[in-house]
Amino acid sequence: MRDVAIIGIGQTPVGEHWDTSLRHLALQAALNALHDANIEKVDAIYVGNMLSGEVGGQEHLGALVADSLGMSGVEALKIEAACASGAAALRVGILAIASGMLDLVLVLGVEKLTDTLGGETTAALALAADAEYEVSQGISFVALNALLMRRYMHDYGWRGDDFANFVINAHANALNNPNAMFHRRVTPESYARSALIADPVKLFDASPVCDGAAAVVLAPAEYARTLSPAPVRIRGSAVATAPLAVHSRKDPLALAAARLSARRAYEMAQITPQDVDFFELHDAFTIMSALSLEAAGFAERGQGVRLALEGDITLQGRLPVATLGGLKARGHPVGATGMYQVVEAVLQLRGLAGENQVPAACIGMTQNIGGSGATIITHILEMA
Amino acid sequence: MRDVAIIGIGQTPVGEHWDTSLRHLALQAALNALHDANIEKVDAIYVGNMLSGEVGGQEHLGALVADSLGMSGVEALKIEAACASGAAALRVGILAIASGMLDLVLVLGVEKLTDTLGGETTAALALAADAEYEVSQGISFVALNALLMRRYMHDYGWRGDDFANFVINAHANALNNPNAMFHRRVTPESYARSALIADPVKLFDASPVCDGAAAVVLAPAEYARTLSPAPVRIRGSAVATAPLAVHSRKDPLALAAARLSARRAYEMAQITPQDVDFFELHDAFTIMSALSLEAAGFAERGQGVRLALEGDITLQGRLPVATLGGLKARGHPVGATGMYQVVEAVLQLRGLAGENQVPAACIGMTQNIGGSGATIITHILEMA
Repeated sequence: MRDVAIIGIGQTPVGEHWDTSLRHLALQAALNALHDANIEKVDAIYVGNMLSGEVGGQEHLGALVADSLGMSGVEALKIEAACASGAAALRVGILAIASGMLDLVLVLGVEKLTDTLGGETTAALALAADAEYEVSQGISFVALNALLMRRYMHDYGWRGDDFANFVINAHANALNNPNAMFHRRVTPESYARSALIADPVKLFDASPVCDGAAAVVLAPAEYARTLSPAPVRIRGSAVATAPLAVHSRKDPLALAAARLSARRAYEMAQITPQDVDFFELHDAFTIMSALSLEAAGFAERGQGVRLALEGDITLQGRLPVATLGGLKARGHPVGATGMYQVVEAVLQLRGLAGENQVPAACIGMTQNIGGSGATIITHILEMA
Repeated sequence: MRDVAIIGIGQTPVGEHWDTSLRHLALQAALNALHDANIEKVDAIYVGNMLSGEVGGQEHLGALVADSLGMSGVEALKIEAACASGAAALRVGILAIASGMLDLVLVLGVEKLTDTLGGETTAALALAADAEYEVSQGISFVALNALLMRRYMHDYGWRGDDFANFVINAHANALNNPNAMFHRRVTPESYARSALIADPVKLFDASPVCDGAAAVVLAPAEYARTLSPAPVRIRGSAVATAPLAVHSRKDPLALAAARLSARRAYEMAQITPQDVDFFELHDAFTIMSALSLEAAGFAERGQGVRLALEGDITLQGRLPVATLGGLKARGHPVGATGMYQVVEAVLQLRGLAGENQVPAACIGMTQNIGGSGATIITHILEMA
C-alpha cells in the first residue's frame, strides 16, 4: 500500500447556522481545505454525513458536493457510520489513495441539524441505535449513556461530579478556538448546578446539537512534500465494530470496538499508547470519554475518570484531550465530528494551535464513535 | 494496486417481503455469498443502501450487518449514492482490497421499501434529486424521467411504443429467473395498453418498488483461484458524477456521468465497447436504458432505442441487456440493485445463467445509476 498524507485542512465554525444550508457549509469547509492544500481539483470526494436524508430531505451528498464545488465528473460518494461518519469517510479516502487508483482526494464531514425541532433531532439521532431492539423500547441516546454512566458509577464507586473535569477542560480549551460553538468557561460549581436530563447524565455531560463541516485533502505521502510545506502522515487507521445494541454486548463498559480499533491502529503505526502526545476523543457524553480512555489503553478499567480528576487530560497534562474544545464545547455536528477531530489534530501537529498548542506534539490520535460504541474508528497522525 | 476478484455471490428473491426485516434480507444474501465463497469470516463489510434511515428507522447498517452475521469486530461501513449505492459499496470494497490493507471483503446491497405507504416511498426516492432546486418544485422521479423521455422523443422523432422492446425483453428474461419479482410476459399489446403515469411514461416503462439484498465476496485476484473454482476478475471500476439537478446539465440527454464512468472503466480494463458481451444496464425507466446505451458507446446519440427495436438487446442479440430481468422485471430494490447486476453478471460469466445464458459470455459490464444520472458507476467483469 501507498502511505497517505494530509496536505490541506478546512472547517466552518460550529454552531446553529440557521441562515446557511448544508450545501454551503460543505462548500465553505471544502474550499478552505482546497485553498490550504493549494490545489483546485481532486480525483474523488468522500462525504461523511449521517442525517441529511432524514433531517434535510437530501440524500446523494457525493454528487451534491461535487456539483457545488464545480467538480461534477469526479468520483463522489457518501459514507455513513452514524456519529462516526466523518472518520468513516476519511477511512475510505485512505483506502482510495493507498490503492494507487486515485491521487488526490477530498474528504468532508458535514451535518446540519438546526432546521428541525428538538424532538425530531433526538429521534433522528436514535437511528444510530438498534431500531428493532432498543429504539422500539423508547430509548434515546441520552438514556443509553445514562445507563452506561450509572453502571460505571455503581461498578467502580465514582460520583457524578467526578466527571466534571472532562467538561471543564473542554470548555477551557474552546475559549481560544474561534470555530468552537461555546466560548464560556465551566466551573465545578456551574457543572454541579447543571440540570439532570437523564439521571445521572447532566446537561453539561452532553455535547450539543449543532451544524458544521470540516474537510481534509489527502495525497500519497511519497509526494505530499512537493505539494505542501507541512504534510501530516496518516500512520494508523482502523475501523472496528461491536454489537449494535448495548444489551447484546458481553461487557457493556468495555467498549470492545474502541479497544480493537485502537489496537489495530497502534499496530499499523507501530507505536504504543505511551507514544501518543494528545488524544482527540469522542466526548459526546462524559461517560464516553472515560470508557474510550480505558479501551484505548490510557487507563485501567474503571479508572478513566481518574485522568480527568488528576488533571492528566489538560493541555499541560500527560495526555491532553479535546484540545480545541472536543465534542462538548467545540460542538458535535454528528457526521462532521470525526473530521473536526482530524483537522484539529493537524493544527496541533503543525504547531498552529495557538494558545492551545500541546508542547512537542509529534503524534496525535483521534477516535470517532458511532452509536453507543458499535462503530469506532481510530486514526494516528504524525508530521511527515 | 492489487487486482480484485469476486469469489462468491448471494442474493434473495426480489419482491414484497412483508414478513422479512431488512436485517434478515441482508443476512440471507450475505450468508449465501459467504457459503458460495466457502469462507466464514471477512476483514470488512461494506453495505450499499439508500433509504434504511428514512423508511426503516435504522441507520448504522455497517455495524448492524456485522452484528447480525456474528462478525462484530470487523470493519463495517454503509456507502450511499442514491440508487447507485450498491455499486458504490462494491467500489469501496475494490479500493479496500486494491490497497493491500484488507484481504477478504463482503459487499452487500440491501433495501426494504414495502413497509411504507406508496406516497412515502415516492417522497423518499426523491431524496436522490436536488432537494432545494428540484424536489421543492414538486418533482418526482417519474416526472423527471417523463421530462427526459419527452425531450428525447421530440429531439429524435421516436414514439412512446418504440421503447416497448426494453420492457418485453426484460420480462421475457425474468421468466427463468427464480429471484425475479415478475414472472409475467409483456407483449407489444399489453405494453401499449399500460396506463400512462406521467406522460409519456407508462406504468410499464417504470421499474417496481420492492425489497431485496444481494452480495459478493471479494479477494485479491492473485490468490482468488486458491479460494474459488470460478473467480471473476474485476477488470474495470469507475464512479463519475454530473450536476445533481437535470436543469443544471448542459445537455440533459447526454448522461455525461455514464459516458465518463464507462470511458474510465474501458480504459482501466483496456477494452472497447465492442469487447463487451452483455450489459446489465440501469433500466429504472426505459428512457434510462436508451440514454445509457448511447453514453456507454453502444449506440449513436438518439439511436439507443433502435437497439431495442431491432432486437440487438435480446439474449440472442448483439448486446444482451437485462439478461435476468433487469430493474424492470427482476426488480429495483434501490440500494441493492447495483449488487444484483453484479451477481447476475457473475452467473453469466460462470456459465450458470441456465436458459438465459449468453453464449460465450467472457466480458460483462454493469452500470448503476444514482438519481436522474448524477452518479453513475460502471464495472467490467471477466472470468479470471
